[in-house]
Amino acid sequence: MSGGLVIDHFLHHGGRLTEAARRFGGAAEDWLDLSTGLNPAPWPVPQALAPDWHALPDPAGLAVLEAAAARHFGVDPALCCAVPGSEAALRLLARILDLPGRALVPSYRSHVEAFAVSRPVRFGEVPAAGETCVIANPGNPDGVLHAPEALCGWADRIAGRGGWLIVDEAFGDCAPQASVAAAVRPEGRLIVLRSFGKFFGLAGVRLGFVLAPPPILAKLRAAMGSWPLHAGALVIGAAAYGDAAWIAATRADLPGRAAALDAVLARHGLVAEGASPLFRLVTGCPAAELFERLARVRILVRPFAEFPGWLRFGVPADPAALARLDRALHNG
Amino acid sequence: MSGGLVIDHFLHHGGRLTEAARRFGGAAEDWLDLSTGLNPAPWPVPQALAPDWHALPDPAGLAVLEAAAARHFGVDPALCCAVPGSEAALRLLARILDLPGRALVPSYRSHVEAFAVSRPVRFGEVPAAGETCVIANPGNPDGVLHAPEALCGWADRIAGRGGWLIVDEAFGDCAPQASVAAAVRPEGRLIVLRSFGKFFGLAGVRLGFVLAPPPILAKLRAAMGSWPLHAGALVIGAAAYGDAAWIAATRADLPGRAAALDAVLARHGLVAEGASPLFRLVTGCPAAELFERLARVRILVRPFAEFPGWLRFGVPADPAALARLDRALHNG
Repeated sequence: MSGGLVIDHFLHHGGRLTEAARRFGGAAEDWLDLSTGLNPAPWPVPQALAPDWHALPDPAGLAVLEAAAARHFGVDPALCCAVPGSEAALRLLARILDLPGRALVPSYRSHVEAFAVSRPVRFGEVPAAGETCVIANPGNPDGVLHAPEALCGWADRIAGRGGWLIVDEAFGDCAPQASVAAAVRPEGRLIVLRSFGKFFGLAGVRLGFVLAPPPILAKLRAAMGSWPLHAGALVIGAAAYGDAAWIAATRADLPGRAAALDAVLARHGLVAEGASPLFRLVTGCPAAELFERLARVRILVRPFAEFPGWLRFGVPADPAALARLDRALHNG
Repeated sequence: MSGGLVIDHFLHHGGRLTEAARRFGGAAEDWLDLSTGLNPAPWPVPQALAPDWHALPDPAGLAVLEAAAARHFGVDPALCCAVPGSEAALRLLARILDLPGRALVPSYRSHVEAFAVSRPVRFGEVPAAGETCVIANPGNPDGVLHAPEALCGWADRIAGRGGWLIVDEAFGDCAPQASVAAAVRPEGRLIVLRSFGKFFGLAGVRLGFVLAPPPILAKLRAAMGSWPLHAGALVIGAAAYGDAAWIAATRADLPGRAAALDAVLARHGLVAEGASPLFRLVTGCPAAELFERLARVRILVRPFAEFPGWLRFGVPADPAALARLDRALHNG
């Protein structure tokens, strides 16, 4: 089996551990999964936090979750709508706005696929009249972080052309000072996406948020129906966003973990890029060969279809995981 | 506060316990909720069944869930797609089929609201060319159960006009002999909706299924994105559909519970209608007055905006709950 063929199965998404185990052996739990940007030290869901799976999710519980999240984002709760994952929400938004899309390169595949018609855009480029631009901040997979002033200036120029700017802050919890959440206005044309699963390390919950003017949120709520979120998302999300101590400790802790990974990578001639402490990008490397070498010792990293010299490394949770990666890179 | 004004807040959906407690007093847990058709004796989620909230939901887990559900429905797994609730799925289907809708009367509000353009339809009526008809079987709130032969004959006539028939079997698990799931064909124009939350009594999970030809399912999956379901839905759903003993015992038990409710209602001059053992409909009653009388003793039932003489009663779980209803009806 050739490297090119095997790597193909991992180019679209991270987190394909079952597929990796099937191709390279071992059980899923034997693997060190560095293929996502999920915090590997997740918010600890308390045992006592048993969701009420019986009843239909109560609208009052949804309002409590949205209020807790809005406080965390620094935005008026009237501008904050919970969604079952920001990827699905972007698809709905693209249909609601009903304009051609412009996605930054590189970015998530879903930023391109969400729109019926989509072309690339450069940061700061003023699009044609009536286009929706989408940017991740920090970027993915490159981790480039734009200042909120630059983003807001760009948003104003796009709005002047009758378009919209959507800023995907999926990894934004690590850098609250760079968020443009507080710049979302009822009469504006700026939309912010937030994700629960990355910073809190709980992607299985499928929870995200759209911060947008109320008329957009009304259409979004109508499209999602009466019960957009499951009972677990309501209680887990509300409790996690309210855990200020854990949030502060995690924000303080993540940069150190990322620096430790950077040091290990550098020891093997790999230079990490980007401003996100949840994932690091290595460019100009023999990605297919390195991907397979790591996979043979049950370490999964993230290659990219469009960038054959790139590998993204999730930041390991602890020194043991980091040492395992160090040994694998050394022995290759 | 007048009866008309108070009842207004409960006409759209069942399960609004928080709202009921706010208006009539008591804590939510003091209430006997008979406003939904959810099985009040739910499938017992095992303590050991802890969802993996950390990782992105694995596609392999989704396939396991869909296989278990397809076996339960009696349909080829290739025709079975899990969705986060059948209400949201119907909205997506309406957009994918992109045809005017025809909904049976009476039916779910969502059957009408899912379509941009919708008119009523009578059972068996052959619609105009290229229309999508939607029917719940058993019906809601009337509980009318149509035979699969009659449904399949209607589906054929609609298909002959280039239209589609969507049969919402949300309450279909109680009457597997009436299901048309096995009549869904890759080349056909029949679609079946199934719901997990009602029969299994776990509406907070937000899980449903669409049984449809593969090209429709492909568009549905594309619209929902890569992770349509949360981690809890994957493990709870797969285990529950695989629990043949619980399913058989519940199917055997429900008719007796429904008959006991019918007897209590009859004692107070209320005649229950319909073939569903999860809810019973009373027509021609002083619904607003009865709704308020029951609410004052913390029993929530379901009134309907379009049918001011109707009340729907969920079937109580046990003799104690039934006795409480009996006393409330007696003392009114």
